[in-house]
Amino acid sequence: MRRFVNEKSRNLVNRLVSSSPLSSSHAFQPCASSISSQSRVLSNTSPTPDPSSSSDSMAGSDYSSTPVNIQSINPKVLKCEYAVRGEIVNLAQKLQEELHSNPGSHPFDEIIYCNIGNPQSLGQQPITFFREVLALCDHPSILDKSETQGLFSADSIERAFQILDQIPGRATGAYSHSQGIKGLRDAIASGIEARDGFPANPNDLFLTDGASPAVHMMMQLLISSENDGILCPIPQYPLYSASIALHGGTLVPYYLDEATGWGLETTELKKQLETARSKGVNVRALVVINPGNPTGQVLAEANQKEIVEFCKKERLVLLADEVYQENVYVPDKQFHSFKKVSRSMGYGENDISLVSFQSVSKGFYGECGKRGGYMEVTGFSPEIREQIYKVASVNLCSNISGQILASLVMSPPKVGDESYESFCAEKDAILSSLASRAKTLEKAFNSMEGVSCNRAEGAMYLFPQIHLPKKAIKAAEAVKTAPDAFYARCLLNATGVVVVPGSGFGQVNGTWHFRCTILPQEDKIPDIVARLTEFHKRFMDQYHD
Amino acid sequence: MRRFVNEKSRNLVNRLVSSSPLSSSHAFQPCASSISSQSRVLSNTSPTPDPSSSSDSMAGSDYSSTPVNIQSINPKVLKCEYAVRGEIVNLAQKLQEELHSNPGSHPFDEIIYCNIGNPQSLGQQPITFFREVLALCDHPSILDKSETQGLFSADSIERAFQILDQIPGRATGAYSHSQGIKGLRDAIASGIEARDGFPANPNDLFLTDGASPAVHMMMQLLISSENDGILCPIPQYPLYSASIALHGGTLVPYYLDEATGWGLETTELKKQLETARSKGVNVRALVVINPGNPTGQVLAEANQKEIVEFCKKERLVLLADEVYQENVYVPDKQFHSFKKVSRSMGYGENDISLVSFQSVSKGFYGECGKRGGYMEVTGFSPEIREQIYKVASVNLCSNISGQILASLVMSPPKVGDESYESFCAEKDAILSSLASRAKTLEKAFNSMEGVSCNRAEGAMYLFPQIHLPKKAIKAAEAVKTAPDAFYARCLLNATGVVVVPGSGFGQVNGTWHFRCTILPQEDKIPDIVARLTEFHKRFMDQYHD
Repeated sequence: MRRFVNEKSRNLVNRLVSSSPLSSSHAFQPCASSISSQSRVLSNTSPTPDPSSSSDSMAGSDYSSTPVNIQSINPKVLKCEYAVRGEIVNLAQKLQEELHSNPGSHPFDEIIYCNIGNPQSLGQQPITFFREVLALCDHPSILDKSETQGLFSADSIERAFQILDQIPGRATGAYSHSQGIKGLRDAIASGIEARDGFPANPNDLFLTDGASPAVHMMMQLLISSENDGILCPIPQYPLYSASIALHGGTLVPYYLDEATGWGLETTELKKQLETARSKGVNVRALVVINPGNPTGQVLAEANQKEIVEFCKKERLVLLADEVYQENVYVPDKQFHSFKKVSRSMGYGENDISLVSFQSVSKGFYGECGKRGGYMEVTGFSPEIREQIYKVASVNLCSNISGQILASLVMSPPKVGDESYESFCAEKDAILSSLASRAKTLEKAFNSMEGVSCNRAEGAMYLFPQIHLPKKAIKAAEAVKTAPDAFYARCLLNATGVVVVPGSGFGQVNGTWHFRCTILPQEDKIPDIVARLTEFHKRFMDQYHD
Repeated sequence: MRRFVNEKSRNLVNRLVSSSPLSSSHAFQPCASSISSQSRVLSNTSPTPDPSSSSDSMAGSDYSSTPVNIQSINPKVLKCEYAVRGEIVNLAQKLQEELHSNPGSHPFDEIIYCNIGNPQSLGQQPITFFREVLALCDHPSILDKSETQGLFSADSIERAFQILDQIPGRATGAYSHSQGIKGLRDAIASGIEARDGFPANPNDLFLTDGASPAVHMMMQLLISSENDGILCPIPQYPLYSASIALHGGTLVPYYLDEATGWGLETTELKKQLETARSKGVNVRALVVINPGNPTGQVLAEANQKEIVEFCKKERLVLLADEVYQENVYVPDKQFHSFKKVSRSMGYGENDISLVSFQSVSKGFYGECGKRGGYMEVTGFSPEIREQIYKVASVNLCSNISGQILASLVMSPPKVGDESYESFCAEKDAILSSLASRAKTLEKAFNSMEGVSCNRAEGAMYLFPQIHLPKKAIKAAEAVKTAPDAFYARCLLNATGVVVVPGSGFGQVNGTWHFRCTILPQEDKIPDIVARLTEFHKRFMDQYHD
């Protein structure tokens, strides 16, 4: 595979060099900047080192006497794709190394990673209260020292004591209950109740290392073979396609309607469900991402009710990715959890099977590196939940810091707490800045020739459509790459901005998009807008039909 | 399944009540203490709550209109078993709740969890230096405050600065590289080099949330169908059987020889390999756990060389579980990594495919709750490693605190560092106490009638064999439970000590064992020994043939 990729890449470069009309200087050449260095990059994009450069002196390139080769591994692994950390990121990492070792080697000073929802990597600061509590729980022996009072807020000290009291033996270094520490689940359940106005049961919660392992767990439970289908939005966050591929199931696509702001139509759901069923696919579940990733829309409550009704009628598990529940940027939209919506319709535990995923990585907290999250599992019989518990037990438990953080996210400081005001100030500053950045980037994209971008209602992304000239599409075809990947690569080489081609998320055939996060810090946005705009203009000028 | 389990349990209790010769008082009745409360327990052993007691007022027990039932889930999930957190632990949790709500309700004051290698849950204190660094990395804004100097050691502050410098943007809350932060991998590679005397490449390291996800990743790569087999020791740590079951492969057992101290004979490996191959199984890998879990033996270097030779000759991937590498308690044995052994034989990167698993959960650190660990992947071609990288990328990265801790474990304080002496004192105290506890328990087991226990050379467990009287076996059969599970349940009911029946790990047919950790704190060991001894005597008296 790697050989194949590299050959493809070399072809790409060769063809670019021989057939493209681009000049050899940096300026005005969005697509071929430093071809020679790109050639080096592309022949070395593998995340693993070239064995010949290994520190192991016995290494070489001949693996013929080792037992594993590409034909002998699990084909499900081969089939799995994950564009968010794919080839474009490898190229970006290489360019970054070149900038470091050879400043001025590219027409930009730094790489700006807009490929992934990773706020703190772009300078977002963690919420102070959360980090205070985590630090105190990591090193509880300082809790009763006088210096600690000077370093930490009073309520963080109090909260750390409370949390430690909930942990058997105060042992933050022990495996917990497989579902997570009971006291922390109690706090999360209270937070869910406060959010929804409906009861939540701590025994319905499974704390996990981020939301991804929770999604895998549900896919593992539901997928027995390729005969089992999962309805997924297109465009989708590729965790879903990857997880379905790894578990050997069938992704049943339903298309979000770009023309109506990435609308989710139940007629489309029904059509795709029937098509899949007519092919003998046993459709098990419906994935809904709300707010949308990569599409950024926030579902209206009426729409959510239709979806709940659809799942109930069609006997589908509703897998609700609600990790962006705090990320809503428009006054006319509001987040409603699917649990709240279904309970408000009168549907209870025995009526609808619903799993809600939440994470500490998103929201205003953005604590991706802490790997905290949970799923709330409702509407499954005790015997099924025993199976979920068993699978959770095999991995023992999720990391305790992530568990603590999940509880903090769902039970932040309250009025009267010492940290309350500073917490609110930090939270509001982050969320209002995200809203403003989303708006600025949305406007910028919509002002570009041949680009249309739906409103950024929520989440952390924009997913503009680029109406590429035929000449650009031909140029991409000539180098055997998808037109949007070609565009993204040209953008990276010209500006240092990393975006993910729409083909990594799925899109209507013949349309081209990319996903760009709204996460660069506010002071960088004007420069990024300028770079994007300038690049796009030149790209369009170059490939004008 | 749950219904079945409960019926079985009720039968067990009914039969115990109607047919057992046990009296109804606590004293002298190892097996039937508080039958009535046990009956309650057994009808409610599910980790999930009885729906009727759910806080959701709409809950009930009729799930007939929900889409998922036990017949419709992935049969691989059903097949998977994980005894370490199985039924006996559910019973223990219930007894604990009863002790809490009704002190004196059982003939013991507390439950002692010897079922799982979870040192800090039994009172082991974390290593101070490690926790200092973790706390500082969690809340870096205190690093340059004057109070911090009074609270933290100078070298922990220095180390935290060093680590932060290695993290892009000092962002401990950001997703890292999918394999883990490069600077931390550098530190781990140096630690491996110092341990082995052979080079280690940071690009060979994949940091994971404990060792378990790393094992899953390799099983996922190697297993395409039930036609793919993995050679596993019997007895084995049930992560392996669970992971093979979840990925749909075939466990090819090889038996450790109890008579020679759980010896690993290559003749046995060869025999089992040939048997499996004759049945058409494509055997892909050999799992070796060294030091052994649950068996506690430490392999001799000469034996390891035979194993390496065997894997090379038979073209098997060697999956080396080396998480107990610091846990060796006898002067005549030493830990040697399989990488060191294979390199010392002259086998390099192109000669043998070897994966070594390491964890922050074991050793003298015992940081189970931090979920840190790594695998060192050598002898795989770049194209295969690209696939491993891709699978790692789907889950983004492991938790950063766990990554930091993995680096600390492999690069602890050095001579001259402020913490060096206290670090060594903490480490030595823990390891020498573990050695002494292992010896005491080993002696205690060997002094019991009909019990034989191999030497505790390493790891955290003893795996004594119990030669049960026929009458005990019949009593177990009468309640439709395995004799060792019957023994373990009686032990728990009489003493509060939780052990895992040997049947959860696998054992030679007709032999019965249990796994007991050596982890209760030293001041509790005499009491535990007394309780075990007294229980065993009464059990044997009761069931004497």
